Amino acid sequence: MSATISHAAPLSLAPDELDKMIRYWEAANYLSVGQIYLMDNALLREPLRREHIKPRLLGHFGTVPGLNMIYAQLNRLIKKHQQSVLYIAGPGHGGPALVANVFMEGTYSEVYPRISTDNDGIKQLFRQFSTPGGIPSHVSPECPGSIHEGGELGYALVHAFGAAFDHPDLLVACVIGDGEAETGPLEGGWKGNKFLNPVTDGAVLPILHLNGYKISGPCVYARIPDDELVNLMRGHGYEPMLVEGDDPEVVFAAFAAALEKSYAEIRRIQHEARTNGFSGRPTWPMIVLRTPKGWTGPKEVDGIQVEGTYRSHQVPLAGVRDNDDHRRMLEEWLRSYGSDRHFDDQGRLVPELAALAPEGDLRMGATPYANGGRLLTTLDLPSYSDYALDVPAPGSVTAEAPRKLGEYLRDVFKRNQKHRNFRLFCPDETNSNRLGSVFEATNRCSVADIHPDDDHVASDGRVMEVLSEHCCQGWLEGYLLSGRHGLFPTYEAFAMVIDSMLNQHAKWLKVTRHLHWRRPIASLNYLLTSHAWRNDHNGYSHQGPGFIDVVLTKKGTVTRVYFPPDGNCLMSVADHCLRSRNYINLIVCGKQRQLQWLDIDQAREHCSKGAGVWDFASNDQDGQPDVVLACAGDVPTIEAVAASWLLQRDIPDLKVRLVNVVDLMTLYHPDQHPHGFDDLAFNELFTKDKPVIFAFHGYPRVVHDLVHGRSNEGRFHARGYIEEGTTTTPFDMVVLNNMSRYQLAIKALQHVPRLRSVAADIAGKYEEVLADHERYSRSRLEDLPEVNHWQWTSDFRDPEGLPSPASAVSRQAFTDA
Amino acid sequence: MSATISHAAPLSLAPDELDKMIRYWEAANYLSVGQIYLMDNALLREPLRREHIKPRLLGHFGTVPGLNMIYAQLNRLIKKHQQSVLYIAGPGHGGPALVANVFMEGTYSEVYPRISTDNDGIKQLFRQFSTPGGIPSHVSPECPGSIHEGGELGYALVHAFGAAFDHPDLLVACVIGDGEAETGPLEGGWKGNKFLNPVTDGAVLPILHLNGYKISGPCVYARIPDDELVNLMRGHGYEPMLVEGDDPEVVFAAFAAALEKSYAEIRRIQHEARTNGFSGRPTWPMIVLRTPKGWTGPKEVDGIQVEGTYRSHQVPLAGVRDNDDHRRMLEEWLRSYGSDRHFDDQGRLVPELAALAPEGDLRMGATPYANGGRLLTTLDLPSYSDYALDVPAPGSVTAEAPRKLGEYLRDVFKRNQKHRNFRLFCPDETNSNRLGSVFEATNRCSVADIHPDDDHVASDGRVMEVLSEHCCQGWLEGYLLSGRHGLFPTYEAFAMVIDSMLNQHAKWLKVTRHLHWRRPIASLNYLLTSHAWRNDHNGYSHQGPGFIDVVLTKKGTVTRVYFPPDGNCLMSVADHCLRSRNYINLIVCGKQRQLQWLDIDQAREHCSKGAGVWDFASNDQDGQPDVVLACAGDVPTIEAVAASWLLQRDIPDLKVRLVNVVDLMTLYHPDQHPHGFDDLAFNELFTKDKPVIFAFHGYPRVVHDLVHGRSNEGRFHARGYIEEGTTTTPFDMVVLNNMSRYQLAIKALQHVPRLRSVAADIAGKYEEVLADHERYSRSRLEDLPEVNHWQWTSDFRDPEGLPSPASAVSRQAFTDA
Repeated sequence: MSATISHAAPLSLAPDELDKMIRYWEAANYLSVGQIYLMDNALLREPLRREHIKPRLLGHFGTVPGLNMIYAQLNRLIKKHQQSVLYIAGPGHGGPALVANVFMEGTYSEVYPRISTDNDGIKQLFRQFSTPGGIPSHVSPECPGSIHEGGELGYALVHAFGAAFDHPDLLVACVIGDGEAETGPLEGGWKGNKFLNPVTDGAVLPILHLNGYKISGPCVYARIPDDELVNLMRGHGYEPMLVEGDDPEVVFAAFAAALEKSYAEIRRIQHEARTNGFSGRPTWPMIVLRTPKGWTGPKEVDGIQVEGTYRSHQVPLAGVRDNDDHRRMLEEWLRSYGSDRHFDDQGRLVPELAALAPEGDLRMGATPYANGGRLLTTLDLPSYSDYALDVPAPGSVTAEAPRKLGEYLRDVFKRNQKHRNFRLFCPDETNSNRLGSVFEATNRCSVADIHPDDDHVASDGRVMEVLSEHCCQGWLEGYLLSGRHGLFPTYEAFAMVIDSMLNQHAKWLKVTRHLHWRRPIASLNYLLTSHAWRNDHNGYSHQGPGFIDVVLTKKGTVTRVYFPPDGNCLMSVADHCLRSRNYINLIVCGKQRQLQWLDIDQAREHCSKGAGVWDFASNDQDGQPDVVLACAGDVPTIEAVAASWLLQRDIPDLKVRLVNVVDLMTLYHPDQHPHGFDDLAFNELFTKDKPVIFAFHGYPRVVHDLVHGRSNEGRFHARGYIEEGTTTTPFDMVVLNNMSRYQLAIKALQHVPRLRSVAADIAGKYEEVLADHERYSRSRLEDLPEVNHWQWTSDFRDPEGLPSPASAVSRQAFTDA
Repeated sequence: MSATISHAAPLSLAPDELDKMIRYWEAANYLSVGQIYLMDNALLREPLRREHIKPRLLGHFGTVPGLNMIYAQLNRLIKKHQQSVLYIAGPGHGGPALVANVFMEGTYSEVYPRISTDNDGIKQLFRQFSTPGGIPSHVSPECPGSIHEGGELGYALVHAFGAAFDHPDLLVACVIGDGEAETGPLEGGWKGNKFLNPVTDGAVLPILHLNGYKISGPCVYARIPDDELVNLMRGHGYEPMLVEGDDPEVVFAAFAAALEKSYAEIRRIQHEARTNGFSGRPTWPMIVLRTPKGWTGPKEVDGIQVEGTYRSHQVPLAGVRDNDDHRRMLEEWLRSYGSDRHFDDQGRLVPELAALAPEGDLRMGATPYANGGRLLTTLDLPSYSDYALDVPAPGSVTAEAPRKLGEYLRDVFKRNQKHRNFRLFCPDETNSNRLGSVFEATNRCSVADIHPDDDHVASDGRVMEVLSEHCCQGWLEGYLLSGRHGLFPTYEAFAMVIDSMLNQHAKWLKVTRHLHWRRPIASLNYLLTSHAWRNDHNGYSHQGPGFIDVVLTKKGTVTRVYFPPDGNCLMSVADHCLRSRNYINLIVCGKQRQLQWLDIDQAREHCSKGAGVWDFASNDQDGQPDVVLACAGDVPTIEAVAASWLLQRDIPDLKVRLVNVVDLMTLYHPDQHPHGFDDLAFNELFTKDKPVIFAFHGYPRVVHDLVHGRSNEGRFHARGYIEEGTTTTPFDMVVLNNMSRYQLAIKALQHVPRLRSVAADIAGKYEEVLADHERYSRSRLEDLPEVNHWQWTSDFRDPEGLPSPASAVSRQAFTDA
């Protein structure tokens, strides 16, 4: 294989510089292979023996030499131009490469003094790799300079763009393996250039690294002709340069030229845009690099080709402990890197090589862009009380809860304009989610052509609307990890599109809490406003509250789940979440017009407690309820409060307590979650032994789990979303899933033995209303008027002034249908 | 706007034919708008009044006219060439269009006689749309001719390719909206052409429908220049034809020409390949169609442009009930379609239009390709006993459980070769998952260039390896929904990449069980062989058993979860799943070499029961155990059996029962799942009141939920995967998450009051072993020998012949470290 390069004039690297770069690379390759294989004799001061080899050989060598070469090349660029560079290693499983380089530039030992820059440090570096108590084989949070794990493939480009937004001085070098290039999220990530503003954002330089194979099979993009590859990149809006080869000298020179040319073009684009203003989406450069898989590794093992094939994907030489031949080959392989010439007797990188690394924060392992907390500017937030909804009495007025939040967010944009450190990320639902007021302060972001009919679209917009949850999530992650703030409003059902991304971010946060050198970053905030209980026209084809379950599996120090029951509570919760650090906050609050309960002061108090009794909806003044109606979620709250209203109206002798839960984590034991109520506080709310009918937004089993171990846990009867029923039920009153007020009331009555006879009678009437409602709604295509117009009244009259029992209204209404 | 067409010579449609096609289209548009707005006066026999309008206006008009035009064009193609066509409506939320067309061609009334082809039927058709008890607004299972819901966007192309594989006579017309085109999964779906064989597969004709807007924002691919769009499609390996315009006559003619030319090219490719054999990946045609959003709808409303803008995305005219002006405009709009000329007095489509629809199974609503059960050929499966692992005694030999399954699957391929109705779908892990024997019968599929070093890659391979879970899942769904069989082996962590796709497929299956006309299809079978407990080098960066939780939320009639504890049980379970219909089966069974427990007959019996006592590991012959050790999952089984071994060895007086659960659904109440054990059977296993230490593969809260409501549920102490601990622990013995045998045994001892003093002593010794293990493994980078080499022995001796207590061994081993 020879080296070819398109579109870039060869750069004449001075022979001495080329030689040193290659030696630097060899040293990095050596340290990478050492991590995979060695537990002792780290610098081969003696012949390699069985006991120097790790008992389990783990790691991925195939991609390592390419990653190391790119690192060395970027080092040169950084030194030459004093350019801040963030290295995103898409093939993050090539972790040894990044660890080796961060070690060679000195960052690793500064962060982990135990891993010193000497013989013993190298031994420790090797031993810790993918072993008990050590570090994972991926570019995990423990690796300085990384914001990208690379454990689950697909998110290199979206992380890169997220980090580049609003960081005009940053260059993100984003390496994409040809395996990762096949994933949907990566293929969807190229479009970041449609949202990147050359004036105010940094640049992303994609480097598509083709080495041909995944684990065992060929890669799609390594097997398409060059002209298709070039078309594909041009179709994505990039101008590609191709570098290909297996001779290090040739490849190094060609890649240096391509990098130099790309950088010049990036600077030209930026200079032009920053001098003359934005004038259209630029065509950014990108590089395609073809090198053999397992480059520099064993050519053949036992007569079978390894270098350049899938066989070098992980550990090219296996059985090294017990196979003397293989061990000899490993020793040869290691010695082929000439480490004697690269490290001195103490195990220090020789000065002429050490000098190739940048210094201070320009080292890619030390860049503050990869330790976002160092760059974090606290948001200037307005007082949320200024955005209060007027709620003269509970359940007396209706509103769309997120409207006021939209005004608050508008002012967040205004107040933090100079910092440019806050964005919304949303799959085209900002208006639909009732947050449209933000467009008084900013616009949708697009650097594409803008048409006269477009609604608030601008090249410097801060609302990132793209119909890709993967882009939204990945961009936001990159934006947060590099030190900014954001909010992700989306549909509840579609949040599950990024379940696995959430997993990885949560695990990242979990680990960083134990890494003192990683400064806290802003929380990842979700707002689910189109939720499973208001499916509208969508039918029940994909709806569900499963995202809550995914977040809850990450419980502990990292996640919080909030169910503000109304607009003022939403304000309090959102404000709290925007101020928080290092969490994943999930806020679920519907956008539909519905009853409001608390004024802003009540909301503040209620939310700060996390859960509480709602006195207005309770009549157990003596503290001895017959039954507790509990609720978490806006729709469950309406139905539970209405159930309380029905019960108080129809059985004045029944003592009902209504408990509303905003912060779901309060239900945990304090030893499971820091927000958890202790048993005393828990029982003050729910009593020790009274039946609790719990109307819950999510799957009811979540409640069973949360109250597991509490006093008389069997008395908790959860009602929630269950996967039954028809595919379409666009009611306002949710009959589906046994969540309607009548069904909750019936359930409550079943658990009050002292009123058995009257209870049965009333329950029968409620059943009749339900049957009427079914018929009425199928005939009139809307809810019964007594449901449609219901509001809280303490004289317990139906909205149209009719006294009990309720069913009279509905039957009459239905008769004329 | 004018119409342009590239690469296609204009086709001269006869004026009469063009006129009729346009009228057919107008009728479809009329029926679509009617569904959105009308509950009465369906054919406007009288002036439109308030009470004719639905109280809630739901649905998406913007995409409808485009979908209707394409349907009419495909009808023409079908009739002309007698070609079977499957219509995938990516913008499935344009459901009214598909429903209208399926109704017009007569299929709808055949399937739903209540919706007759007359005035009353049209009224019912309108009333049912997106209303209580009716149909969703998406192309749901209720819609004949659909295998693709389109509720969650992204999967149109993967479904299309899945349906085309192994259906050589099928043409899949796949409409992709420009919103959907932005999603990652859709962008990753273009690569289906790298796996489609023109000899043995059908064809996919992508139709990228650009109408410019999502909900409120512009679409990315509607705003890139034509040359980029063409490059992009060519880069993906397609040759695009562009059709653009807003004049129906011009657009109809141009699209007909493009379609005709595309079809000719498809047939040419197929003929060439089928005559002369496969000779390389063809360049398939595709069509880009640009028409205005909300085409034919109101141009302006209240002085603001609507047609051609985002404002026509859903309901272009709002407030129609109460706004007389708007209602008048709606009437004008409806009448503009000239329905009087298209429907007769009885409400029947006039004969010259009805004649435009194909007949019988060639109607797209009636095609058996969209009702896969009609095409399903039962798999010819070998007897799985022939693939038994020899297990002379429980816990005496080790094996990699999936190896034998690979041999079985190899023979499944062989036996069903002539039907070509079975494929594996896998993100490049077939070998890694120990299923490599399948390559004795088939190959990896790729129609790209094949290199000499490639391992079992061929253009007619039946193992679909692509590094995209979205492709694997989507292809498999399309393959199953169109009547074939498959298996999806993947990593446990990465299965969560397709959580939301699973949701939608599960809901689809749930609904189809109530649609007698939809014949049962083969189950969607997952095999998770690289699971959360054997993270190896990956670290705990993304691992987790959350996919189980997602599957469990779909409980009821659709899902099953199996934990075969060893290879023979895996055979029994896999065989069962491959024979099943209409389920989602999740099988979790690790690929690592580990102890085997049951011979094939025992495995068959155990799996058919779903859960049972393992006598060999129990010593409660009197049926009065002190403690029950339960387990579900291969790793939990090893640890629980070893815990039983430790306890029996160290406290012979203690009575232990070991219960293994294969079918997790047995733990449910029978009223929650058909596999659920009744209380009698449940208590026979777990007793009524003894403590149960439950070692579970997944999150422990799942166990709490499953046993909720069982006798003394508080006695169940679940141990499972929890999100704690370090990021790397590549042990064989899983100390993490309190799952090790020693930790299970300690937990058991805490719950046996009658042996308190000796229990405390032994527990102390176990704590010492754990501490030793920690030190030993960090020093030696492997497990303690007594763990490494442990196997079941009924004389309760350590493997190296040393008697109890265990800790003596480990301390000695560690001393010389």
